[in-house]
Amino acid sequence: MAVTDIPQPGLYTDLYQLTMSQGYYKTGLYRKKAHFDYFFRDAPFGGQFVIFSGLADLLSVLASFRFTDEECKWLVQKGFDRDFCKFLLEYRFDADIISVREGEVVFPGEPVLTVSGSILSCQLIETLLLNILNFESLIATKAQRLRLASGDRKLVDFGLRRGQGAGSVSATRAARIGGIDATSNVLAGFRYDIPVSGTMAHSWIQCFDTELEAFRKYANLYPDSCILLADTYDTLESGIPNAITVARELETKGHRLIGVRLDSGNPLTLSKKARKMFDEAGLPYVSIAVSDQLDEHRIAGLLRDGAPIDLFGVGTRLITGHPDGALSGVYKMSSLDGRSTMKYTDEDVKSSLPGVKELQRCSDNNGIFQYDVIHLQNERTAQVGEAIRYPAVISGEIQEHATDLSEIAQYRESRTTRVPEQVKRLLNPSCYDVRLDKSVESLINKLKR
Amino acid sequence: MAVTDIPQPGLYTDLYQLTMSQGYYKTGLYRKKAHFDYFFRDAPFGGQFVIFSGLADLLSVLASFRFTDEECKWLVQKGFDRDFCKFLLEYRFDADIISVREGEVVFPGEPVLTVSGSILSCQLIETLLLNILNFESLIATKAQRLRLASGDRKLVDFGLRRGQGAGSVSATRAARIGGIDATSNVLAGFRYDIPVSGTMAHSWIQCFDTELEAFRKYANLYPDSCILLADTYDTLESGIPNAITVARELETKGHRLIGVRLDSGNPLTLSKKARKMFDEAGLPYVSIAVSDQLDEHRIAGLLRDGAPIDLFGVGTRLITGHPDGALSGVYKMSSLDGRSTMKYTDEDVKSSLPGVKELQRCSDNNGIFQYDVIHLQNERTAQVGEAIRYPAVISGEIQEHATDLSEIAQYRESRTTRVPEQVKRLLNPSCYDVRLDKSVESLINKLKR
Repeated sequence: MAVTDIPQPGLYTDLYQLTMSQGYYKTGLYRKKAHFDYFFRDAPFGGQFVIFSGLADLLSVLASFRFTDEECKWLVQKGFDRDFCKFLLEYRFDADIISVREGEVVFPGEPVLTVSGSILSCQLIETLLLNILNFESLIATKAQRLRLASGDRKLVDFGLRRGQGAGSVSATRAARIGGIDATSNVLAGFRYDIPVSGTMAHSWIQCFDTELEAFRKYANLYPDSCILLADTYDTLESGIPNAITVARELETKGHRLIGVRLDSGNPLTLSKKARKMFDEAGLPYVSIAVSDQLDEHRIAGLLRDGAPIDLFGVGTRLITGHPDGALSGVYKMSSLDGRSTMKYTDEDVKSSLPGVKELQRCSDNNGIFQYDVIHLQNERTAQVGEAIRYPAVISGEIQEHATDLSEIAQYRESRTTRVPEQVKRLLNPSCYDVRLDKSVESLINKLKR
Repeated sequence: MAVTDIPQPGLYTDLYQLTMSQGYYKTGLYRKKAHFDYFFRDAPFGGQFVIFSGLADLLSVLASFRFTDEECKWLVQKGFDRDFCKFLLEYRFDADIISVREGEVVFPGEPVLTVSGSILSCQLIETLLLNILNFESLIATKAQRLRLASGDRKLVDFGLRRGQGAGSVSATRAARIGGIDATSNVLAGFRYDIPVSGTMAHSWIQCFDTELEAFRKYANLYPDSCILLADTYDTLESGIPNAITVARELETKGHRLIGVRLDSGNPLTLSKKARKMFDEAGLPYVSIAVSDQLDEHRIAGLLRDGAPIDLFGVGTRLITGHPDGALSGVYKMSSLDGRSTMKYTDEDVKSSLPGVKELQRCSDNNGIFQYDVIHLQNERTAQVGEAIRYPAVISGEIQEHATDLSEIAQYRESRTTRVPEQVKRLLNPSCYDVRLDKSVESLINKLKR
């Protein structure tokens, strides 16, 4: 299941959001208008970009955001005040959200999304917003990196068994936005209309007296969608020869073997030898699928070395966003009651940008993104590029937004093709140019003084 | 929400489980009795043990395991046969499960859990079993490592905002089994009766004209549970002096400041200086909490260097099981229709143990675990130790098992204290001795011939 199944969105939060909210409520501050920006300081995986994902899930949770009687009773038991809990019982999300579209490519330091409303509303949704956006954006970014490495080869998510529990369904959703072709995850396929795909397990092979018999039975059942697992006993001595036998038998019945899957051993050597064996047997159409601890660097290496692989099955390292495991997106107050605020802290890198800001993107004549500009909303300089943020929620009302996953994935594709190659490079990419408009710089200097 | 909320457990699987199951069904093999073992080849985090977690969640999902009309219609659209889908509609989980208890400490290569039943039943639940057990065991193991590093200091989960989406709630459940004292995750607290805990965010401080005013307001609201965030402007110049002022004001009203939290800067230097300042101010009882990218190695280093820290708040690296992100537990057939099976593959390390096995644990006179023995069930040698697996499900009937989280955590504690120190060491631990009984070795040799 996905985040959208959260039966208790109000409690899906850190305790301090509720203690602070009660504090705002009791001190009378709670109606003061605040702005909070969602942004990240570094892109994951040694990269320079993030594919923004999770917006539709966030909006769906906000639409059903409430506290139940039972929850409020429990909060009272935990020491919360009755009058505050009564307020929570009536509470509905009522703020504004401006955001880039889901599937947009975004860069470190940019206000990707801004929540504007009462300080209490901004605070109540912080944790769930971060939980949803950080995770889905992490996985969409990983999937896009895998797509960049794989070129036009098929890329399939096999990760469910190693996914982080119930998070796996939204991970597959995000991976689809980032660029996978299909998934083995049936529930994600059912929910989001993602193509589902799969081969067979070693246990199927072990159920029959010989590998050949196991292959034959499977080919007989699925003559037009058959990918045979070739490494149960010995890939080159047994698996591939048996697959060739079955492919020829399928041909006599007017069918074609789709492919074989290699799940252990050296994928470069094995795929080259297997390719040669199929070609020499007059079966050039049989494709080779590889799984087993793949990531974008391993895929890029295999293809650079000429591995004739047609399909990559990616598991653990996609579904858990390995090696980072988390996008360190944060959510910081930039204005309260008309006054700009910023966080300093003992570490400069943990600072935030003050003021109510907007984001524009500038492209060259070929449509390639050149730089983004962050400027203050009320001191808008000349329109220099495309404003890439839109109202997603107005006074708690969810606005029309893309929910169809293919449409979001297409939008992502239309954007990532416009990112300069050197920024998308898997190793040592260049920074994308994100500029602070003079209006923002002056404000920072004013606040620092 | 947790895995137990999965509204569609039947679809929470890899496609190939369904295509293989249809294959077993149509070839008439599906009633043949199989045994599948759940085990892992390596412990995560460079360690030598795993805390087994997720059993109660797995059993709860199995109890509600079914396919709905809507799902079956969708499967037919996807090409599955009507008669097989009709079978699925009536299907209820009907196999046996033998398992170690939740919270047990287990070691690489051991058959932690065995499913016995029709090959079809074994296969239908493979993916969800792996998804639940791998993830929760990963996090429980990480939490135990953090506990080993922290000694008797308080250990609190702050990870929800960086957790992998909806998986975060079961992660916190597992972390509690592994050894955390409390969590910031309110929903996990509500569901599992875990103590909830929290401090304040920088945004609270920024809502007031001065840090001192922000501290005062908070202390006024929560005079007996107040932990002040000290690093918004300058920890030693502003945060700690203001906290001292507020602590003294609380004293005059008969209350005590609980502590301060340091979330940036060098935690060793800052905690030492802050401790000194509180002590010199006559406030030795004010405790120091530290958060910010902590893991077991950083905590162990801080304590080795004498950092006077009383509470560690652990976020990303606990909740995502960083740096591994997944436990590579697998589920392999060991017997079919009375015949032992094993997987060879091109890589020896990917082999599995054949036969229906049992697991015994041997301790010394002080109760310290010495070694485990894996033997065949029907060739039981003399009882050498404690049989550590119990029937968890009999013919689909869930047996009585621990569901109370404190009870499971206590059981975990009673077991981990009996693991030799050198096996629990955070860096370069020794292997725990897992022995193969002669009965298993003979079977392997027989099958290899």
